[in-house]
Amino acid sequence: MSHEVEIPEDHPRQQSLLTRHRIEDGVEKGVTSKQGLIAEGRGEAFDYLLGEATLPSADDAERAAAAQLLLADHAVLSVNGNVAALVPKETVELAEATGADIEVNLFGRTEERMRAIADHLRAHGAENVKGLTADARIPGLEHERGKVDADGIYDADVVLVPLEDGDRAEALAEMGKTEIVIDLNPLSRSPRTAAVPVIDNIIRAVPNMTKHARELADASPEELESIVAEFDREKALNAAERAIRDI
Amino acid sequence: MSHEVEIPEDHPRQQSLLTRHRIEDGVEKGVTSKQGLIAEGRGEAFDYLLGEATLPSADDAERAAAAQLLLADHAVLSVNGNVAALVPKETVELAEATGADIEVNLFGRTEERMRAIADHLRAHGAENVKGLTADARIPGLEHERGKVDADGIYDADVVLVPLEDGDRAEALAEMGKTEIVIDLNPLSRSPRTAAVPVIDNIIRAVPNMTKHARELADASPEELESIVAEFDREKALNAAERAIRDI
Repeated sequence: MSHEVEIPEDHPRQQSLLTRHRIEDGVEKGVTSKQGLIAEGRGEAFDYLLGEATLPSADDAERAAAAQLLLADHAVLSVNGNVAALVPKETVELAEATGADIEVNLFGRTEERMRAIADHLRAHGAENVKGLTADARIPGLEHERGKVDADGIYDADVVLVPLEDGDRAEALAEMGKTEIVIDLNPLSRSPRTAAVPVIDNIIRAVPNMTKHARELADASPEELESIVAEFDREKALNAAERAIRDI
Repeated sequence: MSHEVEIPEDHPRQQSLLTRHRIEDGVEKGVTSKQGLIAEGRGEAFDYLLGEATLPSADDAERAAAAQLLLADHAVLSVNGNVAALVPKETVELAEATGADIEVNLFGRTEERMRAIADHLRAHGAENVKGLTADARIPGLEHERGKVDADGIYDADVVLVPLEDGDRAEALAEMGKTEIVIDLNPLSRSPRTAAVPVIDNIIRAVPNMTKHARELADASPEELESIVAEFDREKALNAAERAIRDI
């Protein structure tokens, strides 16, 4: 794979092309899969329709997500290839700001990619990366896709699943976990099953959740609970749908 | 690159996943680039919003495109990596039905990919594949991106450019060529510069253009001209935009 494309500086969407190259570097490192590249393209299209900006309703969702992570007994941030490629440092910072664990969890699980992603996260400051033990299963999913760590996602009460497949999002919800899903398509199953659907680009969403978590570091459980309670998931999903229609 | 993903048979969007695997095979063969995979994802998102069906306005555009190709003195179908991966046989059939040439033309041109794509097209029945000579230039584009064959795209009066980059679509239009663009995003620059914008999935659009060309094989130039004249490009672009909004 050496089909490098030079981006002319006068190209109208240089920023977006640079993001693409970041994820392509993920391919070179074995972090991002080919399916991940296609998923990135789908995300780009929805982000384009959303205006490539964080909606006020998404900011509300990111604040509620931060509160939910801070309230958790055991929060876990699930990381796949695209998450690792796009926001490795930002994910480590969110884990630090909320006391959450980080667990690698892949749709197309191979030991090689699991290790490449864990290495990539460690290179960006992650101290403890779960997911490699894989000594528990999410009920209702096929063997490879259901693998999780017993002391990680299996044990968690709150799980952040960015860019997640719909089947697994549903299976995690059925386990009774409080799910926070980041996804750019408000109509896809993953955000529709989430307690907190965040319809935003992960590149903007994760740092903004960290910012909210830091602001809420000294908040009481009652304050955090009221932020969670005030967040209206249906309203947020509808606002994102309207934003896509109003192109 | 061996991150194969097994598609569970009960997955809700098996058809779409199979299409993705066809394009991933293109990667294995050196036909599709990493940028091509991302572009495929963008297309999937827009096709999803369009309802994954050919709009009546797109069918009109495909009929007008067929008429335009039949009217041409010299029509050329421009083929990039995704076109070759997704519709190799269908492109050869459209060339046969309209008397058009086929020319490989890439955003990220490398001799290796040019050859892989030409070989792939020949394996699907193409007898004469242009683009490898590259003895002419499209004015206004950087060196690599402007390369075309003097007796191919450079000479053509009608060019089909499916899944084309906006810069090149504009440069071709400025050369006075009649452009037919296939693109799933009605807002992107490429279809907006085209005489005939076809807002449809290339997998549906190319065979449908061939069907129309066969039906119009015995039509007089006057009949073909009236089909072209009756096609309303603004109306077609607006219909596609409305279809995306009405999700």
